Amino acid sequence: MKIYDTQTAPTPRRVRMFLAEKGIDVEYVQIDIVTGENLSPAIRAKNPLGKVPILELDDGTTISESTAICHYFEALHPQPSLLGETPLEIGLISQWQQRAELYLFMQVGMCFQHSTGYFKDRMKPVPEYGKEAGINAQKFMHLLDQHLAQSTYLAGDKFSIADITAFTAVDFARVMKIRIQPEQEDLQRWYDMVSARESARA
Amino acid sequence: MKIYDTQTAPTPRRVRMFLAEKGIDVEYVQIDIVTGENLSPAIRAKNPLGKVPILELDDGTTISESTAICHYFEALHPQPSLLGETPLEIGLISQWQQRAELYLFMQVGMCFQHSTGYFKDRMKPVPEYGKEAGINAQKFMHLLDQHLAQSTYLAGDKFSIADITAFTAVDFARVMKIRIQPEQEDLQRWYDMVSARESARA
Repeated sequence: MKIYDTQTAPTPRRVRMFLAEKGIDVEYVQIDIVTGENLSPAIRAKNPLGKVPILELDDGTTISESTAICHYFEALHPQPSLLGETPLEIGLISQWQQRAELYLFMQVGMCFQHSTGYFKDRMKPVPEYGKEAGINAQKFMHLLDQHLAQSTYLAGDKFSIADITAFTAVDFARVMKIRIQPEQEDLQRWYDMVSARESARA
Repeated sequence: MKIYDTQTAPTPRRVRMFLAEKGIDVEYVQIDIVTGENLSPAIRAKNPLGKVPILELDDGTTISESTAICHYFEALHPQPSLLGETPLEIGLISQWQQRAELYLFMQVGMCFQHSTGYFKDRMKPVPEYGKEAGINAQKFMHLLDQHLAQSTYLAGDKFSIADITAFTAVDFARVMKIRIQPEQEDLQRWYDMVSARESARA
């Protein structure tokens, strides 16, 4: 089993962090997305969308999309659980995972892609939208700061996949100079706590 | 237990269709998103993001985000499974669910919001981005047509949440005149098959 990975990109980092939390070792194969190696026929045969990460099983079956790879490993190795165990825990973790994904991670990604033109050889950047996406990300960080005043982690007392998604997004947001504000003390407390985990270095 | 719903919106439709497939009856409370009822303090107390659907349990606990509500009900009522049972099935369904969500459902939604200015009282539409999102949705429909030439449903032989996400997106795309093309015979075959399900009328 191996994972096609890009060490510097925020999306595959989520999977590396998830697997580090579970103590699962997988071989990582580096793909250079700057030169477009991910768009090669070899990679597109594994994921027609040409995106990393891609998990390849020993029989050649592939699973793409970071959250899908996490769901696969959670089912294979349920402990420690990062997606929840009871229906309510599963629902609340999924709620925060989805919020962190759509209103933070995606917004940061859109801000990056549309503001910097980094991938302008393969998509049409719309700078005005990039700016809006950055504003959306900052709004969600404000909401998260308020939420974390009453909650240790995003989905309550237990660290979960939602924390990984939000943490990797906040980290990557610094590239666009979107930072935790001095008054966002609860967001900062949570960020420091997650940063201190061994998995943050995966 | 009740669900705050908007009958005409595509996102809550996913939950209604999911629950209809499982044969679960829930009380639905209609929220008027056109007049902004979803942004009222009463709804924001249930979901700070002011979005429907919202599941409210009898003890007042709320779960927002359509996929999170689906995960909750799948854990409570595993059969018929719409999220997969083995690790591989779970992984592949999640892969197609995520692809359908990010590259089709979201793109259709962004095309609608940014092209029509329907919610211009609460967000800043960027028409140029709306157009790009529509093009992205059409590209994914092309990829889906190719995939469905070799697969009955999105994630193989079994109907899943990924089909619900893609189906509700394709249906809503017609509002922006994005339609299945005459040559997309496999996409049309799949669409007709899903349309014929009782749950498509939920």
